[in-house]
Amino acid sequence: MSRASIADAVGLTKATVSSLVGELIARGLLSERGRAPAAAVGRPGQLVALSDETVVGLGLEINVDYLAACVLDLAGGVRFERFLRRENRDTPIRDVFDALGDLGRSALNEAEAERLIPVGVTVAAPGLVEVDSGMLLMAPNLGWSNTPLRTEVANRLQRPHLYVTADNEANLAALGELWQGHGQEWRDFIHISGEIGVGAAVVVGGELLRSGSGLGGELGHLSIDPNGAECPCGSRGCLERVVGQEALLKRARLDAEVGTSIGVPDGGVRLLAESAERGDQRTLDALAEAGEALGLACGAAVNLLAPNTVVLGGIFALLFDWLADPLREELEKRAFVAKCSDVAVVRSELGAAAAVRGAASLTLRAVCADPYLVGSSGR
Amino acid sequence: MSRASIADAVGLTKATVSSLVGELIARGLLSERGRAPAAAVGRPGQLVALSDETVVGLGLEINVDYLAACVLDLAGGVRFERFLRRENRDTPIRDVFDALGDLGRSALNEAEAERLIPVGVTVAAPGLVEVDSGMLLMAPNLGWSNTPLRTEVANRLQRPHLYVTADNEANLAALGELWQGHGQEWRDFIHISGEIGVGAAVVVGGELLRSGSGLGGELGHLSIDPNGAECPCGSRGCLERVVGQEALLKRARLDAEVGTSIGVPDGGVRLLAESAERGDQRTLDALAEAGEALGLACGAAVNLLAPNTVVLGGIFALLFDWLADPLREELEKRAFVAKCSDVAVVRSELGAAAAVRGAASLTLRAVCADPYLVGSSGR
Repeated sequence: MSRASIADAVGLTKATVSSLVGELIARGLLSERGRAPAAAVGRPGQLVALSDETVVGLGLEINVDYLAACVLDLAGGVRFERFLRRENRDTPIRDVFDALGDLGRSALNEAEAERLIPVGVTVAAPGLVEVDSGMLLMAPNLGWSNTPLRTEVANRLQRPHLYVTADNEANLAALGELWQGHGQEWRDFIHISGEIGVGAAVVVGGELLRSGSGLGGELGHLSIDPNGAECPCGSRGCLERVVGQEALLKRARLDAEVGTSIGVPDGGVRLLAESAERGDQRTLDALAEAGEALGLACGAAVNLLAPNTVVLGGIFALLFDWLADPLREELEKRAFVAKCSDVAVVRSELGAAAAVRGAASLTLRAVCADPYLVGSSGR
Repeated sequence: MSRASIADAVGLTKATVSSLVGELIARGLLSERGRAPAAAVGRPGQLVALSDETVVGLGLEINVDYLAACVLDLAGGVRFERFLRRENRDTPIRDVFDALGDLGRSALNEAEAERLIPVGVTVAAPGLVEVDSGMLLMAPNLGWSNTPLRTEVANRLQRPHLYVTADNEANLAALGELWQGHGQEWRDFIHISGEIGVGAAVVVGGELLRSGSGLGGELGHLSIDPNGAECPCGSRGCLERVVGQEALLKRARLDAEVGTSIGVPDGGVRLLAESAERGDQRTLDALAEAGEALGLACGAAVNLLAPNTVVLGGIFALLFDWLADPLREELEKRAFVAKCSDVAVVRSELGAAAAVRGAASLTLRAVCADPYLVGSSGR
């Protein structure tokens, strides 16, 4: 945008905007991008844009069967992204953090080699995360509880000046959609993250809803069959026992075939998608049943929150074509409020990358909210 | 408060506060209340308080088996409150509005006779209400759809200058708790309104959450038994088919005895409470089952929203002693997030009066947000 169009958009004088833009350029947050096409009147102004040359955010993710790291620049560019297949359940927690620390340091090293400046780190985890303390309180699918995410990660990155935060992966996936996906169009949506576990996040008016203790969004533990199978959470018939990645593989009887492909965010799931594409009946049945179960759980969420859109993310993005119709059909039956308002069911474009991208974006959001976090030398 | 203590509280100068207080006194929104007790230094200031002598709000409520009206003053005083037993299902809709219009005009006449000034009217209804249009889109328990609440009521009040709004009764019950109950202490809570139907409202940070289409809060249509009994909403096993007023009376086999007592907000329910107090086993079983069903549905809501408090309102307030323990027990099993955060289950003090009080308060809230809605003559 030109300084003049920024002034129009924010309702400040052109002089004020020029002065503020100058400060943001000095901090390396904006950069000049050549002249605007000649306008009808007056000389064309210099264009400025968010800079992709200075600050970046690092996102890290611990999930049940993989680790991930992502470096995002302010302009939305992915400067580093790596998913590391890893079974994190049956190894010492210390080893998981060591591996995550190695991955994080690689990401930081590559960014720094490009003269980019990391401004913070956010760690995504699949469980109840207390944001203020950076503690993972409970993660039944990992078998972890009271794990100090923030401290464990900060201790391994060898960058004592970097501030580390932690959050639930479903929350961060929704932030990823808001930052890099279609979240700003959807405005009021529920984003469902399918992995081995299933989480969700609620976005109201384009902002992530953080209510009460901040531990909500546990759609995977909605009981869709009150007398159903036991869940490690202590309840019965939890949604994720039917629609989580391993549950789907088992129901499709593909679990034995998974072998080494499990662990990549779309590893075991790509097998499901391929099997469904081949028309394997057991796989199609498992996915239809999962769609129906998701529709039932979404019915509860829609009855409570009346969102305009339900977004299928994580592994569900890849399986969207088989899940969406049974989901919509069941949702229509179950969601009373959907009788009077349209609820779109859509696929996340970011899929399994949403959480780690959202994690990377969270520190950049902090810089956008307060650019003075970055010094005038760009550091 | 004295002008000096208001100045301290809001961070303005005493001169500015004195000038603003003067304007609010001229509009009849504040009134002088004598001198403060002598302070250590300086002469004691005049105390000012919200005035109970000028503006009032009118709340009206249509429910399945009663009508209600309430006039509230700015100081929180109830100046008029009447519940009218009435079966609203099997009579022409026009007759229901005629009766509500009569009730509303009585309330306005009484208020005006006391020289109080009604500033607006809000109508509560048990169904999906589109606030912008004032339409009741759908109310299965009444058998109504696409009913223009705002127009029907405005046409009957003979006060063309009064602005009429409409909202869902569960939303208004939560606003009642925020205005007159303990809502401001609870901050993040789910308020459950039990009547013949069951609704809920979500409050986040002391504000009613309005998300998406604004039609949410339909806790009564959460399916607690996906293959259960059919509900007029089109789903099966809806919560309100087990815990709604008539369902409870039937399960306790008290429905035949209700006779004329049904219809008062606590009519049929008082019978339930008396029967439970006498130790009638069928009643105790019905209430235990209802508590468990509420716990299951609350488990879903708590997993999604992680509130600090669940408030039992409407008829559930009167039945609290029998519902609370089975509810808490089931909630503990079902709500994964409750394993890491306390969720209190409490009784609403306003009970069945919450919705009509909240309705009356809604117009007063508008005046508090913008006192210039009231002219400087107090009109």
